[in-house]
Amino acid sequence: MGEFELIARHFTRKSRRALLGVGDDCALWQPRPGTQLAVSSDMLVAGRHFFDDVDPFALGHKALAVNLSDLAACGAKPLAFTLALALPSVDDPWLSRFSAGLLALADAHDCELIGGDTTRGPLNICITVLGETEGGALLRSGAKVGDDVYVSGQLGDAHLALRALQGQLSLPEPLLAWARQRLERPEPRVALGLALRGVASAAIDVSDGLIGDLGHVLKACGVGATLHTQALEALLGLKQHELWGQAPAHLQVLDAVLAGGDDYELAFTASPEAREAVEQASARSATAVHRIGRIERQPGLRLVDPQGGSVDHRLRAFDHFA
Amino acid sequence: MGEFELIARHFTRKSRRALLGVGDDCALWQPRPGTQLAVSSDMLVAGRHFFDDVDPFALGHKALAVNLSDLAACGAKPLAFTLALALPSVDDPWLSRFSAGLLALADAHDCELIGGDTTRGPLNICITVLGETEGGALLRSGAKVGDDVYVSGQLGDAHLALRALQGQLSLPEPLLAWARQRLERPEPRVALGLALRGVASAAIDVSDGLIGDLGHVLKACGVGATLHTQALEALLGLKQHELWGQAPAHLQVLDAVLAGGDDYELAFTASPEAREAVEQASARSATAVHRIGRIERQPGLRLVDPQGGSVDHRLRAFDHFA
Repeated sequence: MGEFELIARHFTRKSRRALLGVGDDCALWQPRPGTQLAVSSDMLVAGRHFFDDVDPFALGHKALAVNLSDLAACGAKPLAFTLALALPSVDDPWLSRFSAGLLALADAHDCELIGGDTTRGPLNICITVLGETEGGALLRSGAKVGDDVYVSGQLGDAHLALRALQGQLSLPEPLLAWARQRLERPEPRVALGLALRGVASAAIDVSDGLIGDLGHVLKACGVGATLHTQALEALLGLKQHELWGQAPAHLQVLDAVLAGGDDYELAFTASPEAREAVEQASARSATAVHRIGRIERQPGLRLVDPQGGSVDHRLRAFDHFA
Repeated sequence: MGEFELIARHFTRKSRRALLGVGDDCALWQPRPGTQLAVSSDMLVAGRHFFDDVDPFALGHKALAVNLSDLAACGAKPLAFTLALALPSVDDPWLSRFSAGLLALADAHDCELIGGDTTRGPLNICITVLGETEGGALLRSGAKVGDDVYVSGQLGDAHLALRALQGQLSLPEPLLAWARQRLERPEPRVALGLALRGVASAAIDVSDGLIGDLGHVLKACGVGATLHTQALEALLGLKQHELWGQAPAHLQVLDAVLAGGDDYELAFTASPEAREAVEQASARSATAVHRIGRIERQPGLRLVDPQGGSVDHRLRAFDHFA
């Protein structure tokens, strides 16, 4: 049983007050008419989501960043968060660095730490973030046939850094250092999400990999998509690095971009008439966006090369329990 | 460094939007004028907050109950919650029982599960609950000299059950079974908290033990209190059990009542003029309340016996890091 089946089987029921409930990355919830809150929880487990010896400043940053990314995908403005923290012991210098990284990102997004819990236990960080969606939320469910498919920023670098740190591939040190920043210090695309309200027809963050997360959008909308491999391969940030020529030739760039995961970028769709509006949203939020394909009636996700030939793929999303 | 110092040192800053922020069990937070939300997070760790082999139905119940208890202490009405769950593996029967216990209590309080996260990791349950405090919240900070001190329900039984299950003391099976219900299936005093709005001058839940939690109230109010040992010893539910005579004579009842912890009762204060209103709140919420002492100018917590003699105590609150 995978993660999504687990949730569907045991924890999903008809929502009552929630406009968007269990199973989405972000709940939309109306405590009373006129107020709509976006609520998201993410739990980070030592040894699974991060290395035990990771820089605690980066860990504090990332723990909040992954939650803010869920708000970004909703087009929600961050407001406040709670922090629950299980610690094996009290390590004062570690806590100083952790809280500094956490609160620096919180300040950058004017998102206030309002409470939480601390306890002893295997290192575990659970953050719940609250945001507001005044002006309408971005949903997964609005993509239409003919819409363009976009993704923000760069994809795949975090995954290559992770594999290099795990000793599964070898990257020259400057390339690893660059990619590692993408793994450990992701920048949630909050400004882009806000700018895309009223512009994008559907949006999601691609933390579990583009294939799986875009797949959620396609499924929610009852449509399919074709993506262009050339546009996808260009998403790898490392390819722009001056030392890219020294990277091992056998790197599976397309796999990393499509299914690497741990990228906190937004994938979204918008009508072709909205191309200028998308460009403006990109400029206003100072966030690069890339057009990578198109929504089609035929369900499923297809890849084509620059010659229009179809490209096989058997990649899937990251699933903690699959 | 203890839990509260840890929080004060690393995570406490001047609150901005929050009316009541870090360090309280429950944050009060005003996303916009006219809306006041109560927000609380609690994390339960296997082997620390519960035995690995606990009945998952009871665990699901308790995971939500401890959070609802924080709302109760604020006088907040539960609205919705998120669940983040780290699981060592997917155990379908376990999840069925866990979610059944969790959602049964959620339904009883009309509190909707709106989202969360699931991941693989050492068993860890983090719930964040949201409530509303229309009509004004109960705070820790309103106790005045001369106020009566009350506690709801029964205290100390959960602690005795825990010690018996840990093999530290021996209880006859029917007594253990009774006390174990108090440990594993606490009933959050939500209805009492709601009924006490406008009646109680200060309130807190006593999950870390009466001494420590009442101590927070006294500190917040700059006052002290004297409690009556006879009233305190009567709080132990087991003493009403028909087989109480078979319990070991050496049981330290007063210690269990004062500092046992894991009791999800409310301690609160109210002016002597409000005694009838307190009785009505008790009746309206079908929750027993007991008057156990009085707020005084002199700081600190004192115990007196029925003859008015002072009773020594060196008990302290439970602290995960002390």
